[in-house]
Amino acid sequence: MVYSNRDNNAFYAQSGGVTPVINASAAGVIMAARQKGIKVYAGADGIIGALHEQLIDTTKMSEQEVAALRYTPAGAFGSCRFKLTDMQKQAKEYRRLIEVFKAHKIRYFLYNGGGDSQDTAHKVSQIAQEMAYPLVCVGIPKTIDNDLYATDFSPGFPSVAKYVAISSMEATLDLASMCSSSTKVFILEVMGRHTGWIAAAAGLTPVGFGAQIILFPEVAFNQEHFLARVKECVKNYGYCSIVVSEGVRDTSGQFLSASGNKDAFGHQQLGGVAPYIARLIQEKLKLKHHWAVSDYLQRSARHIASKVDVEQAYALGKFALKVALKGINGKMVTLERSKKNNKIIWETGLAELAQVANQEKHLPADYIAANGFEITEKAKKYLLPLIQGEAYPPYHQGLPAYFRLNAKFLKKKCTDFV
Amino acid sequence: MVYSNRDNNAFYAQSGGVTPVINASAAGVIMAARQKGIKVYAGADGIIGALHEQLIDTTKMSEQEVAALRYTPAGAFGSCRFKLTDMQKQAKEYRRLIEVFKAHKIRYFLYNGGGDSQDTAHKVSQIAQEMAYPLVCVGIPKTIDNDLYATDFSPGFPSVAKYVAISSMEATLDLASMCSSSTKVFILEVMGRHTGWIAAAAGLTPVGFGAQIILFPEVAFNQEHFLARVKECVKNYGYCSIVVSEGVRDTSGQFLSASGNKDAFGHQQLGGVAPYIARLIQEKLKLKHHWAVSDYLQRSARHIASKVDVEQAYALGKFALKVALKGINGKMVTLERSKKNNKIIWETGLAELAQVANQEKHLPADYIAANGFEITEKAKKYLLPLIQGEAYPPYHQGLPAYFRLNAKFLKKKCTDFV
Repeated sequence: MVYSNRDNNAFYAQSGGVTPVINASAAGVIMAARQKGIKVYAGADGIIGALHEQLIDTTKMSEQEVAALRYTPAGAFGSCRFKLTDMQKQAKEYRRLIEVFKAHKIRYFLYNGGGDSQDTAHKVSQIAQEMAYPLVCVGIPKTIDNDLYATDFSPGFPSVAKYVAISSMEATLDLASMCSSSTKVFILEVMGRHTGWIAAAAGLTPVGFGAQIILFPEVAFNQEHFLARVKECVKNYGYCSIVVSEGVRDTSGQFLSASGNKDAFGHQQLGGVAPYIARLIQEKLKLKHHWAVSDYLQRSARHIASKVDVEQAYALGKFALKVALKGINGKMVTLERSKKNNKIIWETGLAELAQVANQEKHLPADYIAANGFEITEKAKKYLLPLIQGEAYPPYHQGLPAYFRLNAKFLKKKCTDFV
Repeated sequence: MVYSNRDNNAFYAQSGGVTPVINASAAGVIMAARQKGIKVYAGADGIIGALHEQLIDTTKMSEQEVAALRYTPAGAFGSCRFKLTDMQKQAKEYRRLIEVFKAHKIRYFLYNGGGDSQDTAHKVSQIAQEMAYPLVCVGIPKTIDNDLYATDFSPGFPSVAKYVAISSMEATLDLASMCSSSTKVFILEVMGRHTGWIAAAAGLTPVGFGAQIILFPEVAFNQEHFLARVKECVKNYGYCSIVVSEGVRDTSGQFLSASGNKDAFGHQQLGGVAPYIARLIQEKLKLKHHWAVSDYLQRSARHIASKVDVEQAYALGKFALKVALKGINGKMVTLERSKKNNKIIWETGLAELAQVANQEKHLPADYIAANGFEITEKAKKYLLPLIQGEAYPPYHQGLPAYFRLNAKFLKKKCTDFV
């Protein structure tokens, strides 16, 4: 590799909860940068790495390592839950970023995250202007929750959707085969604190193969309706398979997972809307049940990632680098759905960072069936193309050949940040 | 298909908790039977189908449907939790079985299940002898718990082991990439009420890629040691990834999942050793944590089944039919590990039903490391060959093309069983 462009380096960081394909975006950025002779420095543990000048020199990564990013889940460079929002209160942090970027000749700021992170990218771009430092800021979308505006989908979501649909399908087959003499109800808890996109994916299974009840955060939980529906399913099919979003709330707006879940010492029980629903079914219907909480499994399941997801995450990374090199500042790269030869494809596009920052895209009302427990044909039409194709990772000795980076750091040039 | 052998039919039933590959054994039985012109009648919902003369005529299944059994998880004919044990107390049931078998010219009894089911098969063979009815009884092993004696492994276990190892690996990568500013501890609960085979599978991941702590049912839970180990991991690696078996007990022999897990109303909390461990970590170490309960997901995850498992489950089904046709009565078919050209292979063998019935094979003491939290090299040597190969199902529109049987029943010939 020849890095001809020595005075214009790029900074890349991963932000917020990780996904099965965020590393594919990283691979896209690095691959595109190498083609242009641009060095990419990655923030160790996200933006924290920039503040503390912990910069990973990706030029030291072999081609194989960069290729391995494409099939390795989670954040290879480390991610963080650290918010940079208020430009006044956090002026010190914003200024420090520019100090570090200046020291390492970083001219491109590529930030891979959700709504909060797009807000940060926007503000970094503003502070650079204020400080008259030439910096091009580009956001790359990522969130399993699929709650980002302006892009057809957020990379990460399709793979989680695929995992949830398959898991619900498999567990429902299990339930169906045991229900005559054993378990009658199965409950799978999935993520989505504020939006029901992930839960909705359970509606993609063919009739008779998946959950009969989906509980969305967008629909206030009505215990009576719910229990009636469970009884009806058990009566008609012999079993009832349920997918519940962690974000479901009761009619007073309180999370179900928080209501009444106190232990013997009066402490709030730790999370878990699935055990809450299970207890309800036990107490009110006396039906044998099982429950699962997929938690991190769902968002790290690279072994069953959607091919569409991996390819588009990679494409967005490549496109973000190109956009940055063109000097297009203050944008988030997006995906636009279109059709080619009667096949759905995605093209890359751009949105204003200011526009996508700090917004949440909820499941549209017409994606949820009138009974509140299913998705509509319109929802299926949107969701189904996203889970197409299986992008299997390579295997070594029966396990995925995932990789962990042995990070090589840049020599520090600034004083410590305190 | 020509079923030339009209006076010698075979009965096949699935028993107990289902697995990702029990249908592969069914496919083996049916394929082998078709080659010999033998009809296979499957019990709907296991042995209950025989008692109530609910016999599924597998001769009505197309070749494609039989082939689809190989890649469809759960029990295609239905399974049950119904124990036939005491020959005196349940004499009526045992005699009824013979009545139904006689009516349908069933000469071969193939029972696919765990330890209890092998016991049932043994007793059916005894009652047939007592009643002078010529019946050949053959057991086919199946249990995700891997607790059956006399066979190198129980079909079903390798796929669950693969799922658990991969899931732990993926969630650990997720945890590792977030730990600097967020979650420090992740807990994955897996099955294995009495034995730690499934939990042990988490020890197959390469160093730095999986759980640092495994909690086995075979090791009494020592809170102090455990918490010290969690602290040590977080100190040394920044995070701690834990896999816990649902069957872990405290020093007094009580299941952890039952101890202290009472809700605000004083009711026993429903299951969940993972939330118990999570609460402990919260209260004693104040570390941010996440937990998952894989429950049915782990035992139905055909999408990531072990190739070894699928192939051997199928081979056992075929072999069981052949053994039955030879008139070898009162045996369970088994797998014997051997080597060929330096590669581990499995050969089929036989064990006495009387010998394998109602026994539980625990994780050997020398499979668990001295610290009680890891597996030994000896354990890895046994386990690793089992998870080799990925037997992916075919996909249709982004989801596995699993199949559900539209069962064709035989005409009843007996009076109703009451």
